Amino acid sequence: MSLDGPYDPENIFARILRGEAPAIPVHEDADALAFMDLFPQSRGHVLVIPKADARTILDAEAETLRRLIVVVQRVAAAVRVALLPDGVVVTQFNGRAAGQTVDHLHFHVIPCWQGRPLKGHGHGQMADGDDLRRLARDIAAHLEV
Amino acid sequence: MSLDGPYDPENIFARILRGEAPAIPVHEDADALAFMDLFPQSRGHVLVIPKADARTILDAEAETLRRLIVVVQRVAAAVRVALLPDGVVVTQFNGRAAGQTVDHLHFHVIPCWQGRPLKGHGHGQMADGDDLRRLARDIAAHLEV
Repeated sequence: MSLDGPYDPENIFARILRGEAPAIPVHEDADALAFMDLFPQSRGHVLVIPKADARTILDAEAETLRRLIVVVQRVAAAVRVALLPDGVVVTQFNGRAAGQTVDHLHFHVIPCWQGRPLKGHGHGQMADGDDLRRLARDIAAHLEV
Repeated sequence: MSLDGPYDPENIFARILRGEAPAIPVHEDADALAFMDLFPQSRGHVLVIPKADARTILDAEAETLRRLIVVVQRVAAAVRVALLPDGVVVTQFNGRAAGQTVDHLHFHVIPCWQGRPLKGHGHGQMADGDDLRRLARDIAAHLEV
C-alpha cells in the first residue's frame, strides 16, 4: 500500500465494524471500537479504531482523531489498572513500509514489563482465544463509563 | 520512572518550552511545540509535545490530547510532503519500560522508507545540526497555517 489511495471497505477492520468478521471487544461507543489484537506483541495488546472510514492518520478527519485519541487514553488507563504493566507503548503505523498491515486507521495500545521485550510487530503467533476473552473482560471492567 | 508520580518541571522538554534549552522547531502554536529529534530514528524524525504539563498519555487532560493529536497529524502530513517517505510511524511511549526517556508527554513522527530499517529508539547518534535545521525548514514550509 502506498500512503495514497481510496479506502477499501473490505479491509478486515471494516468487516469487524460491520459485524461481518469476529472480534473480541473491549469497548465500543458511537465513534470507536477497541478490541484485542489476535497477534499480540504482549499480553493485553489492544487495538483502537475509529468507526469513520480512514486509512491512515493522514486521511482521517481531525474530529475523528480527536475522538479516537481520548479512547486510546481511556484504554491505556484501563490496561494499566487491569494488568499493572511497567509501561505502555502506543504505536500507529501508516503505510506498509511503516508496518501497517490493515488499511484502516488504528492505534496499538501495548502494555510492557521491564525485562520482557515485546514480540515484533507482524509475528505470526495467534493468541489463545480464552485468554483474550479473559483479558478483554478485565480491561473492560476498568474502563470508566 | 514508574508510571505514577509528579510532573518534573526540570525535564528537558519543559526547559525547551521555557526557552531555557535549545531546540530546532518545526511548528509552535498556543498548545503545542514540534521540533526535530536530535537522535533521529530516521532523517526527518520530529517530536510533538503539548505545552501543558503531562508526563504520559495517562495523566494528560483529554483536551490536551485532542489538541495535540491534530498537530501530530499536521506534522505527519508535512513530513510526508517534504520528504516523500514510503510510510510514517507514530509512536508514544509511557514509562521507562516502554522506552520513554523524557518525562514530558511526546509523540514521535518518524518517516520511513522501504528497505531502510529505522534506527533503534535510544541509539546515541546525534544528528548534524545543519541537516536538522534544513529538514525543519522543509517540513515547516509544508505545514498549513
